[in-house]
This record gives sequence, C-alpha cells and structure tokens, in this order.
Amino acid sequence: MNHNYKMIAMIPARLGSKRIPKKNIRYLGDKPLIQYPIDLCNETNSFDSIWVNTESEELGKAAKKLGVGFHRRPAELANDTATNREFVYEFLHKHECDYIVMVNTTSPLLRKETLEKFIHFINENDYDTIVSVISEKEETFYKDKPLNFSLKEKINSQFLTPVEKIVWAITAWKKETFISLQDSGVNPVFGGKLGRFCIPKDESCDLDTLEDWRIAEGVLTSRTINTKERYMDL
Amino acid sequence: MNHNYKMIAMIPARLGSKRIPKKNIRYLGDKPLIQYPIDLCNETNSFDSIWVNTESEELGKAAKKLGVGFHRRPAELANDTATNREFVYEFLHKHECDYIVMVNTTSPLLRKETLEKFIHFINENDYDTIVSVISEKEETFYKDKPLNFSLKEKINSQFLTPVEKIVWAITAWKKETFISLQDSGVNPVFGGKLGRFCIPKDESCDLDTLEDWRIAEGVLTSRTINTKERYMDL
Repeated sequence: MNHNYKMIAMIPARLGSKRIPKKNIRYLGDKPLIQYPIDLCNETNSFDSIWVNTESEELGKAAKKLGVGFHRRPAELANDTATNREFVYEFLHKHECDYIVMVNTTSPLLRKETLEKFIHFINENDYDTIVSVISEKEETFYKDKPLNFSLKEKINSQFLTPVEKIVWAITAWKKETFISLQDSGVNPVFGGKLGRFCIPKDESCDLDTLEDWRIAEGVLTSRTINTKERYMDL
Repeated sequence: MNHNYKMIAMIPARLGSKRIPKKNIRYLGDKPLIQYPIDLCNETNSFDSIWVNTESEELGKAAKKLGVGFHRRPAELANDTATNREFVYEFLHKHECDYIVMVNTTSPLLRKETLEKFIHFINENDYDTIVSVISEKEETFYKDKPLNFSLKEKINSQFLTPVEKIVWAITAWKKETFISLQDSGVNPVFGGKLGRFCIPKDESCDLDTLEDWRIAEGVLTSRTINTKERYMDL
C-alpha cells in the first residue's frame, strides 16, 4: 500500500549556538551546514515544499538563497526553553499537508537513500509519529544494572536484544493528530501510533562541540576518499 | 590511595577477518592497525610488559618488530567460538601480574590520556573487573518500550538517565580473581567487584566493515587537520 501522502519538509534552525557560533551558516567541508538538509530534501523530490523554520533573518536569507521557503518563527518560540512541541504546532497551523517531516541540521551525514526509505516508510504505514533511531546490540547497563545481558555469562553480541536510541535526525508527524493532541493538552511529540525507523549508525552525529564538527568533516571526507590498501612488511 | 599494582598489557589479535582481510597489519592512516594499541601502551609507561596474544606467526613477527612480546595462543583458542574467558585464562597462567589490561586493536581512536586515566582508576580502586563504557543521554527504547523517558512528555536530554554500553576498548581484570572464578566454573569476564569506566564517545569505533575503516581514518584525520573557519555569504 502506498498512501502517497502530501508531505512537507521543515528544517528547524537557530542562528545561535554557544559552542559553535553561527554553525548553521558555517562551512562543513564544502558547503554550509544548513545546505545539507536542504539539498537532501530537494534531491528526494518527495516534498510539496521545503521550509527553514527560524527566527533569524540571516538564516531566512540563507534559505531563500538556497531556493527554499523561509518560515519566520515567532521570537517567543525561539528561546532556550521552547520545544518542538510548540514550534511544530505553530508551523503546522500555517502549512497544508498530511505529514510534516522534520529534518535536523545536525544530521549532515544523512544519506539520500535513507531519507527516501523514510518517506516510503511513512507512505506504507499509517503512523501518527515516526522517530528515527539507531539500534545497537551491545551489552548495556541501565541504573547500574545489566539491561540486556547477564553478568553470569558472556555471549556473542549478535545474540543480544538491541537497544534503540532516538537520534532526532528525521521525524515525521501526521498533521491532524499533532494538532488535535496539542489542542487537547496532550504531548504530541510522541503522540498517537508511534513508529520507529532505523537509520545506519554512521549517518547520525552530534554537532555540539568543535570536536564533533571535525569528526563529521572526517566522516564526510572518508566517504569520498578511497584508501589505498597497504600492509605492514613482515 | 594508589595501590601501584603490577600491570601487564595484552593485545588480543587474530590475523583473519572475513570482511577486512589481514586487518591487523593493514595500514590505517599512517601506521598498521596493530601498532595503535602497541604505541598507546608504550606511551603510558605503566606496564611491566606488553604482549600481543595471537595464534598467528605473522602477527607474532609484527609484535616483535614493534618491540613487544609475542604470546603464542594455542590453536584451539583461536577459532570463532573461543571467548576471552578462555584465552585470557590461558594467558594469565603464564604471566605474573596483579592486573591484566586488555587493549583491543579495534580501538585505534583511544587517546593516551584515556588509557592513563584508566590505569589511575585501577590503582585508586579495588575492582576485580573494569569494563569501558560509553554513557549516553538519549531517549532509549528497549523491547519496544521507552526505557528512560516517558511518551507523555518531551524533556531536555540532559535530564535523562544515562544508558551505558560496554565498548570493550579497554578491560582490566585482577589476575587472582579471574583465575579462581574460572577454576570454580564461574564466568570471570564480569566477575567479582565490577567497575565501569567511561571513555569519550569519539574514542570508540567499530572496525567490522570497510566503511567503519574509512570512518576511523576520517576521524583520525580530523584530529590533525584544523578546519579553516568559513561562513556563507549573505
């Protein structure tokens, strides 16, 4: 089944960042950070429209320059305590769609194929919310106790129950559900029928510190450079 | 308190790897993979001796060439089903120490400061086993259910209870405990008083596939290259 839903893409962005100033317009490798999700959304050809949701005039200008819409976020939804619950709601009131797909600028490593599979996943199902997760089979502790393994034996990690963490790289919400939950005072962020979509581990990254930034550049470089095979002489 | 324990380092290594043939002697960046843990152990100046534990003559030669010991692992402990439970036990029987520190070749990103802190952590405490973990504060699912968050609210990730996964980058065992547990048929791998030591997230990596390999090279490159700051023109 393919619902062929009407989808729009929203890229939330703020100019400020304490540890990496102006990070969204800073070059990561060969293009500014904000351009990664924009190019990605354009390349999939699946969105009715693509919007940068920001309070910043500067980022709004950047959005227009890169050929996508500028959704001016009200200043009161741009402070440190504002959550996506509020700014997604505000955005949805002004844009027609079945689903909104939020693509974060902190996900420059996301591949086109992954976003395409995500869109396919939306259309093939009928979730109200879909979060992106990374699934890992590693011995894990939670609250000082083993979660998915036993201290009494060491088993091969492929037999462990996976642990999945939300990475917020891409998120989808059904507009109707989001609005009605928020209107009735219920948190819509994980609202309704909740789906989880696995993305490859190397497509998620943090961009909190300059070190994260350098690592992301390293990973991007590694995708284009083909290492020469070389072995130790024995 | 500093116990000043006698410690030896053991680097387990096998020549074979299905997806990356001869990976331990393959160059990662500017040196062979096996040389990373060897250099690291040498640099800390904390070990009485450093050994490569392998069944491979070729890797044994590599170890000697790089100035460390070659512990020849019996062939029956080098197949796919042999676990560290068995080969650590065999190794410990032949080497005197208070603690054995296992450093994996799959951890080329580990920094000297981290290994030094780990050794300090051994000496300051009295654990029987210490595993290295990465601690993350992310919304996590386990068996289809939220583990450390509630679907009813979206809270800032800094307030989430962390989830810790074992990475096997560095592990320490007290010899006496390991031997006596194994002798009495109890699994010694997580045996006795168990400590957890957090390592920085960017010092852990997988090296299962050629893609992992390229990423590790990218990360290593990112540590030496200093990005020029450049911003989008608006």
